[in-house]
Amino acid sequence: MPQQINAYAAMSPKGKLERYSYTPKPLGPDDVEIAVQYCGICHSDLSLLNNDWGLTTYPFVPGHEVAGKISAVGSNVVHRKVGDPVGLGWYSKSCMGCKQCLTGNHNLCPTVEGTIIGRPGGFADRVRCHWSWATPLPGELDSAKAGPLFCAGVTVFNPMVQFAVKPTDRVGVVGIGGLGHLALQFLNNWGCYVVAFSSSDSKRADAMKKLAKSLDFIISTVNVPLDWGTILDTLAPKGRLHLVGALAEPLPVNVFQLLTSQLSVSGSPLGSPATTAQMLDFAARHKIAPIIEEYPMSQINEAFERLESGKARYRIVLKNDLV
Amino acid sequence: MPQQINAYAAMSPKGKLERYSYTPKPLGPDDVEIAVQYCGICHSDLSLLNNDWGLTTYPFVPGHEVAGKISAVGSNVVHRKVGDPVGLGWYSKSCMGCKQCLTGNHNLCPTVEGTIIGRPGGFADRVRCHWSWATPLPGELDSAKAGPLFCAGVTVFNPMVQFAVKPTDRVGVVGIGGLGHLALQFLNNWGCYVVAFSSSDSKRADAMKKLAKSLDFIISTVNVPLDWGTILDTLAPKGRLHLVGALAEPLPVNVFQLLTSQLSVSGSPLGSPATTAQMLDFAARHKIAPIIEEYPMSQINEAFERLESGKARYRIVLKNDLV
Repeated sequence: MPQQINAYAAMSPKGKLERYSYTPKPLGPDDVEIAVQYCGICHSDLSLLNNDWGLTTYPFVPGHEVAGKISAVGSNVVHRKVGDPVGLGWYSKSCMGCKQCLTGNHNLCPTVEGTIIGRPGGFADRVRCHWSWATPLPGELDSAKAGPLFCAGVTVFNPMVQFAVKPTDRVGVVGIGGLGHLALQFLNNWGCYVVAFSSSDSKRADAMKKLAKSLDFIISTVNVPLDWGTILDTLAPKGRLHLVGALAEPLPVNVFQLLTSQLSVSGSPLGSPATTAQMLDFAARHKIAPIIEEYPMSQINEAFERLESGKARYRIVLKNDLV
Repeated sequence: MPQQINAYAAMSPKGKLERYSYTPKPLGPDDVEIAVQYCGICHSDLSLLNNDWGLTTYPFVPGHEVAGKISAVGSNVVHRKVGDPVGLGWYSKSCMGCKQCLTGNHNLCPTVEGTIIGRPGGFADRVRCHWSWATPLPGELDSAKAGPLFCAGVTVFNPMVQFAVKPTDRVGVVGIGGLGHLALQFLNNWGCYVVAFSSSDSKRADAMKKLAKSLDFIISTVNVPLDWGTILDTLAPKGRLHLVGALAEPLPVNVFQLLTSQLSVSGSPLGSPATTAQMLDFAARHKIAPIIEEYPMSQINEAFERLESGKARYRIVLKNDLV
């Protein structure tokens, strides 16, 4: 009989998070269970808590920036063992057999499973996933700061790999929050010339004019509409505006701007297990880590309020104190 | 004293084209003069004739799909000689010294000159350009059909090179006119699986549903708004919608579509001299040529009316009969 998992769950949209226990099914043959040490809060935890995207099932256990240790492995698992320090992010399982999985793009598998979509997440004492998404933590990484790398970190690192950003490139980062402050660290250590644009900076328009047609790559982490025409104008020929922020409104693209300078506008979700491992290795080697505010998990509602206030600098991480 | 050039020009927006002669300046040291044999009509000749883009100067001599022979060379020209069969397209000069020119991207030079922007084009007995844009015609090409390759042809060929379309890719072409019918030929000979979407096909929506998430690359040649969300839905993960048609309205992009499948939306202008030469070589080797309707240049106004009717299949070419 599997042991109960203790978690925090909301019972309805915008509900407070409360203590909640559930009995998991027997552990699947390819799955692992992680004993949660820390779990970061991402803005999408809040979006799902509020059912903003119409995807949430209740009781809803958020949390998808997990750092912990493997506490159990299924009968088929050979690549992970009990005691391994690992992390878990937005995705928890893919089919392993489709074209995307077979080409290393597990994050683009049509049936990829989200850690907090229709299943319980990481604000708990334990959380489960397919072994492939429990990515080993390099020893150099501080486990209190590792969790946010699995969502915020790989979200901004992945496009650098996918679109082959070069150390000689001039790169802009729009929106300096949980994702943006990690993007700055990754890009600076990548060797790039890096410009930060705070989405709330009233001087941004002037700064952008000075950068006219000079940036090779812009990564936008914001989820609010901006003056995209002005932003596109900062791109050099063959430049790319890459979006990782989930904008609800359609983004109006001036086609003449694209045509004249051969520009691209693109987006991407989180990275594959292989890219996640590459990101962790790079982060460990360059001492890249989020700046965090730590709360005990028992103060989860206060932590969500702090997130909503927009004042967190730059990522909130909860330390598991469930007993 | 340079010899007068005989041409067809409009004296005002939407004016009829009439016989017009001008005395050119002395030939620049890096320029060549081309004796025009044939010149295709492109939709942008009509847009400029009507001053739709606010760029036109009058008297306006359209024509930028030229096939002919070099009739004179400037004092510095060493790469072309009198008698060489050449073609000339949308661009006629770039600075040769900026970063774009120095990296082979002359078409993206910030001061690149348009053949019919502020200077007389190819509906004439002679036309001039910097030697680098008078691209030699392979002997196998029929000069009556060569002109459209220099605008329509390289416009659709260039993105195949720029974005490394692979012979194993599944590619869609939206809009089967002057550009689209050449795109189909280039892509079929490139080895791709190719699907054509007529922009006027009422069955397009059904056909597109069947293609859900299966295309790697779509090239859109249309200049009218379409249901871009449905078109993006036909793209496989990492797919690209590439625009070469000059849409006046902003294109509304659903950011969630980009994020989920790592899609790109992009545009490009015509290709560089090197890409143009590559395109001509590929066209000659695979017997790729436009399907044309030929008119004598003296029937230029009838030819423009035929273009406006939308009935031309697929490109109109004027044969020089100026005497």
